[in-house]
Amino acid sequence: MDVDIGNALASVASPGISREALDRLDERVGQAHERIETGRENHEHGYAALNLPERTDPDEIRRAVDPVADAEALITIGIGGSALGAATIVDALEGDTEMVFLDNVDPEWVTSRLESVPLAETAINVVSKSGTTAETLANFLVVRDAFEAAGVDWTERTIVTTGEAGPLSDLAERHDLPKLRVPDGVPGRFSALSPVGMVAAAVAGHDLEALLEGARTEAESLSGSLFECPAYAYGATTYALDGRGAGINAMIPYAESLETYAEWFAQLWAESLGKDDLGQTPVRALGVTDQHSQLQLYRAGPRDKLVTFVAPRERSDRAIPDTEVEELAYLGDSTLGELLEAEFEATEASLAAAGRPNVRVELETVDEYELGGLLYGMEASCVLAGELYSVNAFNQPAVEWAKNATRGLLGGGEFAEADAVAEKTTLRVER
Amino acid sequence: MDVDIGNALASVASPGISREALDRLDERVGQAHERIETGRENHEHGYAALNLPERTDPDEIRRAVDPVADAEALITIGIGGSALGAATIVDALEGDTEMVFLDNVDPEWVTSRLESVPLAETAINVVSKSGTTAETLANFLVVRDAFEAAGVDWTERTIVTTGEAGPLSDLAERHDLPKLRVPDGVPGRFSALSPVGMVAAAVAGHDLEALLEGARTEAESLSGSLFECPAYAYGATTYALDGRGAGINAMIPYAESLETYAEWFAQLWAESLGKDDLGQTPVRALGVTDQHSQLQLYRAGPRDKLVTFVAPRERSDRAIPDTEVEELAYLGDSTLGELLEAEFEATEASLAAAGRPNVRVELETVDEYELGGLLYGMEASCVLAGELYSVNAFNQPAVEWAKNATRGLLGGGEFAEADAVAEKTTLRVER
Repeated sequence: MDVDIGNALASVASPGISREALDRLDERVGQAHERIETGRENHEHGYAALNLPERTDPDEIRRAVDPVADAEALITIGIGGSALGAATIVDALEGDTEMVFLDNVDPEWVTSRLESVPLAETAINVVSKSGTTAETLANFLVVRDAFEAAGVDWTERTIVTTGEAGPLSDLAERHDLPKLRVPDGVPGRFSALSPVGMVAAAVAGHDLEALLEGARTEAESLSGSLFECPAYAYGATTYALDGRGAGINAMIPYAESLETYAEWFAQLWAESLGKDDLGQTPVRALGVTDQHSQLQLYRAGPRDKLVTFVAPRERSDRAIPDTEVEELAYLGDSTLGELLEAEFEATEASLAAAGRPNVRVELETVDEYELGGLLYGMEASCVLAGELYSVNAFNQPAVEWAKNATRGLLGGGEFAEADAVAEKTTLRVER
Repeated sequence: MDVDIGNALASVASPGISREALDRLDERVGQAHERIETGRENHEHGYAALNLPERTDPDEIRRAVDPVADAEALITIGIGGSALGAATIVDALEGDTEMVFLDNVDPEWVTSRLESVPLAETAINVVSKSGTTAETLANFLVVRDAFEAAGVDWTERTIVTTGEAGPLSDLAERHDLPKLRVPDGVPGRFSALSPVGMVAAAVAGHDLEALLEGARTEAESLSGSLFECPAYAYGATTYALDGRGAGINAMIPYAESLETYAEWFAQLWAESLGKDDLGQTPVRALGVTDQHSQLQLYRAGPRDKLVTFVAPRERSDRAIPDTEVEELAYLGDSTLGELLEAEFEATEASLAAAGRPNVRVELETVDEYELGGLLYGMEASCVLAGELYSVNAFNQPAVEWAKNATRGLLGGGEFAEADAVAEKTTLRVER
């Protein structure tokens, strides 16, 4: 990825960062880079994620999915980081395999999703590091049951990605299922470039080597200066802008195929940096659609936002047919791609003209290579931001409370948190 | 809708509002209600939206869609308020008609969406108040051309919803197409309960009367006190919390079918209130999925957020099959619905326990009647908030700049804004 932070400078925007402040910040980037390199060398928890491009073995993934390589559909059962990386990759790239992601436990929706695919031609990809994630295991039990009810042998069609031990690992052993490992030291939201994110891509026949190669190229650009490294330029700019009042980061891809990427980014940013009362709030949006929804606020609301655009330089196009209507004749001389591109540049300029900070992330096009670079680049940006904030970007302690309460409410043990649920303060207004 | 603001009280949360402050705010709610009632009586711009439940004629909408009532698929071409209300309704309710919304101009995506439906069995619903919206008209030209190329007479299968005059209105006259009016005085984001939002629902065979009846029941609850009116309770609480530091409003439905509703809400909130450097930033999320993505930030990040839950009290359910794995046995005694409900209550309590403000919006279930109430209730909340902020909730002046720039860039006239695009400040970092 290439990054243009010109519209985040104080000469353009408020909040914005001055060139002098950027230079000072660059010294801290240099120190953070040292820390990151040490973490990578020692394969420390979290930092290890930045070593995935060299460590992930595409052949191993392809061997695991070989038994279901001709599946018409794939049901991936996972939630959070066990689903979003995989979904981002297959949604960004064109493939023929129908992809279903069960990342919620809404009963009607699970049923309708199950009914939307031909089970006898469908493979199952179940992903949980601990092997005990309640939503994932509940859905897996439901899916397994549905396969059995339809007379389809799920053991012939299931791939498991999990940690070294746990119920899912045991189950894979018992039924001799292809089993892939969630790599050690890699939190879920940083695992897109491991089997967690790449099994679905392998089933769809995407080029895993190109994904990893793009990530490797991005990794090679990591250096001690934000002015030489797009990932660090992005991470440092967001950190600087947050400190100057832009507590919100609106991620706006100008490509429908990157809509899920914005969701992936939102998890990466929120769960990694949202701690100790710190962290930007990611907002996911989509160009051009959200120009007709959010742009009014972004241009004229509180000065608490950084807008990040992600746009490919090349895309396939489609001509807009001529029209007899004079008022619309200008459209007939254009293509949909030119319209999209003009809207993008206009929106970017519109924010700059109003002094609202924004950053442009450019890809050559949306393919495996560029996508690998984007995912790796944003992960490295996030790790750098974690260093600058001095937070641990690799844990998520605040989600434990609700997990315990849920388990307690369902009779899965004694948890004080479950008792607190009953003590809710109410002030009800009914119609 | 029913609203519970207990977890937004200062006794629970920080930021939060004290009971005393709520009582004082209620006086301003009374005054705002007077203003709103006057606006409704005089059918003033914007306020007129709150009269739609009495004014929209479901028979007229059904007559217009009658020629395509048996269509297998419907392509709705519109953007922003011309698409989101319709999408919210059909996504929330179960229907057999395949629904495609062309609310973006991404060339590859438009092509793949067009190829996903059988054109000979597909109807077209084109929506633009002005009849000149660039994205909508460009897509309409593309779709019309695709129908012609496939030998399908689009004039037999197209419904137009537009303002009194303009190119779309002329086109409808010329080809004798069924034409519905975007009602006067109703901004797009407030038009879900007009033909703009209800044509797609009519094609899907949903109960239009029940939608309007639910909205009427909500309208009857509007009163001079937030303690007696759920819509005002919500609008006043969000306003009060924003003033106390919660500049972000995360909307989290606990029902997949309401995912699009969160998008609709995000436009309503952002475009109506995001002006004069004011306005909460809406964030759309989804329970339980985003517990594994955003909850860490919401519970432990900056105290700048109000979380709004929307949950139905009743839903159809699905049992979780028993499992031989002891660690997961508790799941086998439950249903997916119970798991979802436990996760919801646990997440709500988890935020309250961390002193993070949240509001619960309850529906009886997700059906036409309750949905009509929800949409109307949130619109009334938003209008009230506009009064409290003293902003004009019914315009969106900040989007004009980019529209002019786009038009200029595409050769549709001379616009100074287009020249500004070329003057972009750059600070590029390339890999």
